[in-house]
Amino acid sequence: MTTPLRLGIAGLGTVGTGVVKIVRQKANLLAERAGRPVVITAVSARSRDKDRGVNIKDYAWEDDPVALAQRDDVDVFVELMGGSDGPAKAATKAAIAAGKDVVTANKALLAHHGQALAEAAEAAGKVIRFEAAVAGGIPVIKALTEGLAGNEITRVMGVMNGTCNYILTRMQSAGLPYAEVFEEANQLGYLEADPTLDVGGIDAGHKLSLLAAIAFGTQVDFDAVELEGIERITIDDIHQAADMGYRIKLLGVAQQTGRGLEQRMSPCLVPDTSPLGQLEGGTNMCVLEGDAVEQIVLRGPGAGEGPTASAVMGDVMDIARGFRLPTFGQPATSLAKAKSAHSVTPAPYYLRMALEDKPGALAKIATVLGESGVSIDRMRQYQHDGDTAPVLIVTHKVTRADLNQALEAMATLDVMRDPPVALRIETV
Amino acid sequence: MTTPLRLGIAGLGTVGTGVVKIVRQKANLLAERAGRPVVITAVSARSRDKDRGVNIKDYAWEDDPVALAQRDDVDVFVELMGGSDGPAKAATKAAIAAGKDVVTANKALLAHHGQALAEAAEAAGKVIRFEAAVAGGIPVIKALTEGLAGNEITRVMGVMNGTCNYILTRMQSAGLPYAEVFEEANQLGYLEADPTLDVGGIDAGHKLSLLAAIAFGTQVDFDAVELEGIERITIDDIHQAADMGYRIKLLGVAQQTGRGLEQRMSPCLVPDTSPLGQLEGGTNMCVLEGDAVEQIVLRGPGAGEGPTASAVMGDVMDIARGFRLPTFGQPATSLAKAKSAHSVTPAPYYLRMALEDKPGALAKIATVLGESGVSIDRMRQYQHDGDTAPVLIVTHKVTRADLNQALEAMATLDVMRDPPVALRIETV
Repeated sequence: MTTPLRLGIAGLGTVGTGVVKIVRQKANLLAERAGRPVVITAVSARSRDKDRGVNIKDYAWEDDPVALAQRDDVDVFVELMGGSDGPAKAATKAAIAAGKDVVTANKALLAHHGQALAEAAEAAGKVIRFEAAVAGGIPVIKALTEGLAGNEITRVMGVMNGTCNYILTRMQSAGLPYAEVFEEANQLGYLEADPTLDVGGIDAGHKLSLLAAIAFGTQVDFDAVELEGIERITIDDIHQAADMGYRIKLLGVAQQTGRGLEQRMSPCLVPDTSPLGQLEGGTNMCVLEGDAVEQIVLRGPGAGEGPTASAVMGDVMDIARGFRLPTFGQPATSLAKAKSAHSVTPAPYYLRMALEDKPGALAKIATVLGESGVSIDRMRQYQHDGDTAPVLIVTHKVTRADLNQALEAMATLDVMRDPPVALRIETV
Repeated sequence: MTTPLRLGIAGLGTVGTGVVKIVRQKANLLAERAGRPVVITAVSARSRDKDRGVNIKDYAWEDDPVALAQRDDVDVFVELMGGSDGPAKAATKAAIAAGKDVVTANKALLAHHGQALAEAAEAAGKVIRFEAAVAGGIPVIKALTEGLAGNEITRVMGVMNGTCNYILTRMQSAGLPYAEVFEEANQLGYLEADPTLDVGGIDAGHKLSLLAAIAFGTQVDFDAVELEGIERITIDDIHQAADMGYRIKLLGVAQQTGRGLEQRMSPCLVPDTSPLGQLEGGTNMCVLEGDAVEQIVLRGPGAGEGPTASAVMGDVMDIARGFRLPTFGQPATSLAKAKSAHSVTPAPYYLRMALEDKPGALAKIATVLGESGVSIDRMRQYQHDGDTAPVLIVTHKVTRADLNQALEAMATLDVMRDPPVALRIETV
């Protein structure tokens, strides 16, 4: 087949510009690999005249991404605008209705509307690909959907928000408090306009919900992701975890349990010698576990012009080569509605609390834990900070439900300042 | 499409048995994911009656793999016999001639005959897939050929022989000499019948030559791989490397240089904090570098029933889904014959030598190095071992050609016992 594959690109920010560069600069390489030319015919963005360092004058211009999505000279609508609703959603729907394939980097869109969009696309015989939406340049969707297609997936884990990992590793390496590193990250432009998307775990949660759907053949269910951000992690937590041989990571975990599908995105302790523990800075990592393959670990840049454009182009090249797969690896109509289970898999937990410096304070805590069936593996009391005693407890394995019961009981004790911080210690 | 995809499996050792188990136990999952059933119709192996823990009575039996490859009820010939020539080659050729697609785990076959087989397959409109031939369960061929298809690949590295990595890490962790750990590995059944395939770097070299062909769009050229085994690595090398913050790995590196394609499989020093440096035991790792994606690291089991069968099934599922790609990612006839360059990329080197304990011995070495243009970054002389002084030198960056000249000159010195061991320090 030598008919060119014609792209219409909506959104010319960092990623869109990166895609334009690759298509312009590597025309021969792409044609050789795909067996046909890959070209851009039309683009759309907020500003036509902004200097992006690439020439877009050769391409037709559309102010409206919906109009771009409907153009006759576009085969693949490449959606790089972002946002779960608004123009991205409207244009993606329009593209499918107009019989276009779709490549998108938009995790929010798919986390919220993935099932409906996939059903629409498949009814129209069109594909939606979204490698760039999860873990930047790492071809994790492909690994999971295709490379591991012979596996029953047992667990998927990931550090998939580079900003959070930057903040946590920078706190550790520089010994700086959360607020200061947060501000640093802000100055460096690492944070989304609404930083809660990053530090609240929402962005990473979107990604996890997409991986879970693919891994377990279930409908995307972002609302079922237990979300916890990194805002309450202190430099003391980081030091104390390190003392015990752990690192704190904003870790996503999805696994099938006897009681349903568990999806968690929360700060966890992982062994400092594990690949996850050793992940520094903005790098992302996905851990895929299957009954046949055991464990595969993928590591790479989670963001940036080149890596994200690389992922977009991987999808484009698949389409150019005629690889057509349902959005989530199997027909959308065959995806089960998962029963969601909230942290039913037991794990040891790290608990950090501040107790009033009164006789018997520690005993009260230990008693409440014991009464709730939570047994203590290790306990440390640190030097008083004024009239408060920082106390650290590592529990034996416990379910989150049992732990929550203990935490509630502890909150009623008069010796307890602030609610305790509880972080799961994940077996990786 | 609901026509079943029919497999004929030649070779029922560990991997073949693993594939049979997956196809039998996951019929529904595979059908859902592929959109059609995947079935086995016929098998072939050395012994029909051996107890393999799976029931093969449902399948037609062929004593001769060539006959299996030619059966009318086989769509995909799955070659899991091994060996670069003999029955594996004959049956693969027969399969292509009979219009079958081929899935193989046979690195030796493709390293030696990949170009001819690929040309034959493509002329017949058939595909050859070989994910299981490189790095076991890691979907690295797929990542490189498809996921990174928008990249100009700049370098590919890999630790791809689990046995060598087991030996090297076991030497380090247990403080045991090479010979002893080699024997251990032998007892554990980790070594090939001809152990040179493992410890001589040949098996890993086969894999590197396949990765290089895909990465750089060149014809497989195993003969151009500079091969060096791990047989001369001593426990002292391992300790001394560790002292300086390095680990020794049997590392494959392929990169395009201004003077041609460099392919090396040799023991190298890598930083102990890098993902490669931290790789323990039989686990494999591939590092893929591209101009857009920067660096992707893939880690996973390099061998074993489940992981290798997982890779085979990834290929089978691609074929079931109708994904058809030339063997090396672009048409075999378009693959360039690479000009091969031997270690032209300069690097620092670790040199270990034994000098006679005579006045001026060290000065002679330093002089020869200086005269050959090799400058010294660090030098250590260790406590005498009888009348021999172990000396360790780390050079500044030097090409292997310049270093070899220095090594030759050093070999003529009367103070030099045995030829020096020279290990490259690779930037990862």
